[in-house]
Parts: sequence; C-alpha cells; structure tokens
Amino acid sequence: MVRSRATPGRGTIVSDAPVVDYHPMWEELGLDLPTHDALLGAVGQMYGDAFLTQKNRPDAMGYLDFVVSEVHGLRIRELHDFRATGGKVVGTFCLYVPEEIIRAAGAWSVGLCAGAEFGYEEVERIMPRNTCALIKSFMGFKLTRVCPYIQESDLVVGETTCDGKKKAYELLGELHNVYVMELPQMKRPEDVAFYRGELSELRGRLEQMTGKTITAESLKTGIKEVNDKRRALQRIAATRAASPSPISGKDALLATQVAFYDDVPRYTASMNALADELEKRVADGVGVAPASAQRILVTGTPMALPNWKLHDIIEKSGGIVVGEEMCTGSRYYDALVSEDGETVEEMFDAIAAKYMDINCACFTPNQARMDDIVRMAKEYNADGIIDYALSFCTPYQMEAFTVEKTAQDAGIPIMKIETDYSAEDMGQLSTRVEAFLEMI
Amino acid sequence: MVRSRATPGRGTIVSDAPVVDYHPMWEELGLDLPTHDALLGAVGQMYGDAFLTQKNRPDAMGYLDFVVSEVHGLRIRELHDFRATGGKVVGTFCLYVPEEIIRAAGAWSVGLCAGAEFGYEEVERIMPRNTCALIKSFMGFKLTRVCPYIQESDLVVGETTCDGKKKAYELLGELHNVYVMELPQMKRPEDVAFYRGELSELRGRLEQMTGKTITAESLKTGIKEVNDKRRALQRIAATRAASPSPISGKDALLATQVAFYDDVPRYTASMNALADELEKRVADGVGVAPASAQRILVTGTPMALPNWKLHDIIEKSGGIVVGEEMCTGSRYYDALVSEDGETVEEMFDAIAAKYMDINCACFTPNQARMDDIVRMAKEYNADGIIDYALSFCTPYQMEAFTVEKTAQDAGIPIMKIETDYSAEDMGQLSTRVEAFLEMI
Repeated sequence: MVRSRATPGRGTIVSDAPVVDYHPMWEELGLDLPTHDALLGAVGQMYGDAFLTQKNRPDAMGYLDFVVSEVHGLRIRELHDFRATGGKVVGTFCLYVPEEIIRAAGAWSVGLCAGAEFGYEEVERIMPRNTCALIKSFMGFKLTRVCPYIQESDLVVGETTCDGKKKAYELLGELHNVYVMELPQMKRPEDVAFYRGELSELRGRLEQMTGKTITAESLKTGIKEVNDKRRALQRIAATRAASPSPISGKDALLATQVAFYDDVPRYTASMNALADELEKRVADGVGVAPASAQRILVTGTPMALPNWKLHDIIEKSGGIVVGEEMCTGSRYYDALVSEDGETVEEMFDAIAAKYMDINCACFTPNQARMDDIVRMAKEYNADGIIDYALSFCTPYQMEAFTVEKTAQDAGIPIMKIETDYSAEDMGQLSTRVEAFLEMI
Repeated sequence: MVRSRATPGRGTIVSDAPVVDYHPMWEELGLDLPTHDALLGAVGQMYGDAFLTQKNRPDAMGYLDFVVSEVHGLRIRELHDFRATGGKVVGTFCLYVPEEIIRAAGAWSVGLCAGAEFGYEEVERIMPRNTCALIKSFMGFKLTRVCPYIQESDLVVGETTCDGKKKAYELLGELHNVYVMELPQMKRPEDVAFYRGELSELRGRLEQMTGKTITAESLKTGIKEVNDKRRALQRIAATRAASPSPISGKDALLATQVAFYDDVPRYTASMNALADELEKRVADGVGVAPASAQRILVTGTPMALPNWKLHDIIEKSGGIVVGEEMCTGSRYYDALVSEDGETVEEMFDAIAAKYMDINCACFTPNQARMDDIVRMAKEYNADGIIDYALSFCTPYQMEAFTVEKTAQDAGIPIMKIETDYSAEDMGQLSTRVEAFLEMI
C-alpha cells in the first residue's frame, strides 16, 4: 500500500530501483492523484517509522522493503502489463477464495486495500459508522479512488464470512464487478460438500472470464505454486520458535501480508532466501531482540497491509511477537493442499478439504481454533497471548471471550485488545501492553 | 414476559382469572424469585402505560391483555403440565425454525425471552458490550434466571442467521441444551436444498427427543394449524389498510409477538375473533386514531416481547403504525406453506420453499425485501417509513441504507432509527419522530 517515505510517486529510498514516475499509470487507472499521493506519503512515513528503525534486521528483508516501496508502482505495472496481454486479475479480501483455482484458470489473484483509515466520511454515507475498520477501509479506498489493486481487478470475488462483508459486497457491487461465493458456517461433511459446490461455480465463472479451461495440469501447477509459497512461510514461522527470535514479529507479519500481493514464484524464492538466513541465525544464536524479551502470540482478526499497529506497539514496548494466529499468519500457511490428486475433481476435493479446515471465527462451533491457539503458544514458546479484535468485528470480538477462557484454562497469560486503525488510542494501548509485558 | 401491573406473581388486574400464586412453580423452575418479581413489576408497569392507556381499543384485545398478564403464569403452567405428561417443549429465537415440524413431532414451540434489558452486567462478562440488545437480552434472562420459557424448554433450537447469534449459541450451549441449525446465506436452488437437508436433520433430532415419528398426517396437521394462525394474522393485517385504521400498531404488534408463545388453536380462534371485530370496524368506519393521523410502515429488526418502544413513541406522537415489515410482522405471516403436499417429503419441500422465501437481511442479495417494503407501503397506504435497527444488529443496520435508498427512489418519506431497549434515548427519539410526522 506504501510506496516510500520520500517523494510520493517518484523514486524510493529503500531500493536501488530506477526512479520511475507512475502518475500517468495511476491516472489511467482512474485514481484520485492528489489523495493517492497523500496516502502514499502517510503510509511511507508509517513504514519508515515502524520498519526501518528496527535494529539488526535480516538482510533478506530488503526484498520486502523493495516490494512495499513499489506496491503501488512496479507491482501495479506488472498487473497492468499482464492485463494488456489479455491476462485477468481477481481481487479478493479473504483466504476462502482459493488462489490455486484462480491461477489454474490463468488469472492472477491479488489482495485488495483494506488496512488503513481512508475515506471514512464517504463510507459513512452508505454504511453504519460502527462497521469494522477493515470493511470501512476497503469501501473507503474504493470510494475515494486510491486503491490501484481494485482498479486493476477484472473481478472481485467476495465471500459470506461475516454479516458486515456480506452486506458490504452488495454496496461494492454497485461500484465494481463483484461475484460472491457462499461460505458455509459449520464444518460437517455436508458443509464441505456445499463449499466444494461453490468452488465448481467459481471455476465456471473464472473460466468464462479468462476463456481458459482449468486442466489437471494447470491445477496441479497452481496447487504446487501456492503450496510452495506456504512452505516458505512455514520455514520462516518455524524459526520464530527459537530464543532469541531471528526476526521481529513486524517483519514476519509483513512477509505474510505481502503474500497476498506479490508475484508468486518470485515471492516464494525470496521468502526461502529469508528462511535460509533465519535458519542460519538460529544456528548461530542471533536474534533481533534479547532472549529475555517477552514472547507474544497474537490471535484474532486478520491485519491487512498496512495495519502494523499492534505489532509495533508490542515490539516498541520491549516484547517480541513470535506468531500470528490469524488469516495474515498461521491460518494462511499452516496447512497445505494435498498434492496427491491426479484428476481435476480430486484436486478440487483436496482444495475444499484444506480450506474448510481453516479455523475462522465465522464457523460454529470452532473448538479447533482453541486447540490451535494453545498448540501455537506452546510451539512458539510464547509467554503470553494478546488477542486482537477490530472494533465491530463481531465474530472475533465474540470469540475473544472463548479464547480468553481457553488460555486461562491452559495457564497462559492473556490480554484482550479491541481497537481500529486510528492512532488515537496508541498511548492507551501502549500503556496496557507495557503493563501486560511486565506482568508476565 | 409481563404478568400484570399489580402485585407481581399474584393476581391480575386485566382479567377475571382466579388469583393464583405461581411462586412455587417459578421456584421449581429455578427462577431467581426476587429478580423475577422485579422484572414482572417493571414490565407490568410498561404494559399498563403503553397499552391500557389507549382509547377505543377493540374489545377482542382483552384476550391478549389476559395472555400477557398470564404469560409467565398460566401459560407456563400449561407448558409445565404438558411436560409432566411427557410432552417436550422447544425454545426458539427465530422464524427459520419451523413450528410445523416441531408440532408434527408432538412437541410445542415457544419463543424465548429477548425483548428487555436485563442482566447486562452478567452478560458483559462473557460477551462484548457492543452486542445487539436482542442477544444481550436472551443471555441476560438466562444468566439471571428470569425466563421461565427457557427453563421449560427441553431443547433450544438456534440458527446461524447472524454473527452475533451464531456465536452466542456457543455460549448458551454451556448453560442449556442447544441444537443449532445452519441457515444458508443466499436463496439459490442449492441453498434451498441445503436448508431442506437441515430440516431433515432437525426432524431426526426432534423425533429422537419426543420418541414420536413425524407422519404425513401429523405434518399435515402441523402445517394446517400454523397456516391457520398466519391466516388469522393476515386478516388482522388487511384491516390496517383502512383509513382510519381499526387497530393501533401497538396492539397489532402485540398480536404477532404473542403468536410465538400462545397455544396455537386457542390463539388462532381468538385472533379470528379480533379480525371479525376489526372487519366490522372497517365496515363501520370506526378507527382508533383520526383518519388524519400519519400512517407509518415500520421496517427492520424484529421486536421481541416486551419491546414496544418505537411503536409507543410513534403512536404517542400522533402517528399510527399500519404495518411491520419484520419477523414480528409480515415476515411471520405473509406467506403460507403449501397445503398440497401429500407425502412427508413433499411437505418438507413445501416448508423449505416457504421459509427460504422470507426476506431476512441475513440473505444476500436481498432485493425481494426491498420490493416487499415498497409493496407494503402502498398496500397499507403508508405516508412514511420508519426503518428500525437495533444498535449492533449488523444485517439490518447495513441494509437500512439500501432500504432508505429504495424508499427515496419510490418517493416514500423515510427515517432511519437506531436504538436499543433502554429508556435513555426516549426523549430524543420522540423529538425525531415528531419532526418526521410533521414533515410528511
């Protein structure tokens, strides 16, 4: 979402990439240039403050610095060029829209802007003030024309994961080409079968759009490529169990956030390079924070780029985040799609099984998520859990009480935090986090 | 929910029923007697103030006055006696749990307490403050042990209509015997088929509980009985199109609210008697308010007994409510289950088709609801619409914006109101309603 800390739209201070003026491209996309420049300036400032001030970062993070600096630049140019040759881009807001299937149909999948407070005044004319920040953000980015990803999306695929998004897609549908998949709310065999049916419908929709048929070969490749991305993230995650942790929570979170936007093979190779470096750090006992730093597992609502608020507070307070039990975390990369399928049908079955195994709070009951949180706290040697819910994110806000009880029963210190994207409560949150870190 | 305005738990001032002390029964049910007495006293006061102060009420409303005065008394005694002879009672919170099927399995269906602010302090220990009043209410009634209906329920059947209820049932499940049906979120043929499957599962669960098999005969009877109830309510609703309206909105709302609690054949007969009286009033040009009173259609979140707040404000401000586009209104009685089915399977298909035709805001898209609102505004000769959403009721809060746009496009004045069960904003709401009534 950010380009750089320097002149918006021109050059970058975090890479050696040539200085390119992207304004003509943004104008062609219909972006509101002055507002977009202001956005990039603000987020660039945030990025510099949160990331570039960190000490002893892994060298391989340079790749992510570069990607972020070019996330509205070079990456959009790539999407632009891809579409100019007939390629199709699919924008998504949720894990449950399988990237494997999108890629197998010859399209590219990108996440959409949803992690910063923008355009709320416009948003509140068409939806309630007390809507969660993620939803207000994606509508705000669209209404104020500052998200190049949605402008480059031939189709947005939504899902019915929560009341707010379900209704927001109806409104977004008046502004963009939107297709909504229905996600079931339980995980019984009939639910998996239902979701499997939704995947078949999605297939038809994608094939119609791209004019390409999903074959066993293209689907096998799609599964392999996305699994490889997850495997790289699993390697990174595994190193965070070490004490001291070889990477900050902020950098690890960023790695997962970028997974939604970047070119898949290039990203995977870069993340494997990062994992190589982290594994060496672990072997050498090198960390980014003292071994005495309190180790925190963060659980809850996903954190869309550029939402780094809570991680920043925790790590500036002297703690270190060692894991994210969220869709921008373990729920993204923990499980792989089985690679044993040979026919398209078998592979679709495998995809349905994998995705329906994700423990989103939209499911009821959701005991597996509780088991996962306790397992992760142990595996990553966490000293405590901070459960994070966006205000008005009903599923995670409600489930936070069950998470709290689960952690208490397991003897793990826990603190619940509810916040949004604004900076207003930073001081108060810092005080609470500091007190929690001292207490554990 | 209310017993009377007089001595709680003893006697009644609105009927000639014998004075009975129900305290031993309530104690046996595990109710918290002092708190329950306080509740009955408070609600009795509300009832007296809202209903018994009305002028020129239909005589047949005496039946509903009596039912309300005995809603925690005689009706609970009936449930108690039914259960003593092996009968089973099923508590529900939502239209999507078909009463036809419950009755066909030999059980009785009752609504559960959810319409008053009670026990919030206890509730906020286990769920977020910003949960909708309906959910906080049902949890508060359970936690503070003041709802005899849930105490008399052998099983509570929940559904996944919104994020809040879906998660609340997990918490309620720790306190009571709860079974959750999954409701789909769209209305395509595959969704109807899915819901049909849920009905079959519900059938199995009910048959197991009652030890009775649903037969074509028992199901036909169940369908007929519940349709008859709806037909009576349709007759009442139809008279409200007349000017002047022969019945207040408050009384008509109460009629629908009581439909969830009362004995079915008795209730139907009484409502037909009320309809007879109202039809005569229409023929005679008799109304409860001047023909010049502004006629309001209320749309939105259902109003559970004893939630009469908005209707009371509108009618005390000089308007008259002529229809409720809500689950405690037209969505309850507008459509019938086809009576053409002969086999159990055919009848289940008909039940699925009918219920999946209800336009709850939990569905996406939900254009049929918009069409319905415009149709109702015309049919009932409404001068304006007041859209009502409980605070934090995401589906209806979000959809309120679409309702507003729909009404504006149709040239119907509309005002959106968001509130809860508290009396705190009564003054402010009255001012807004009065201004709206003057404006239209």
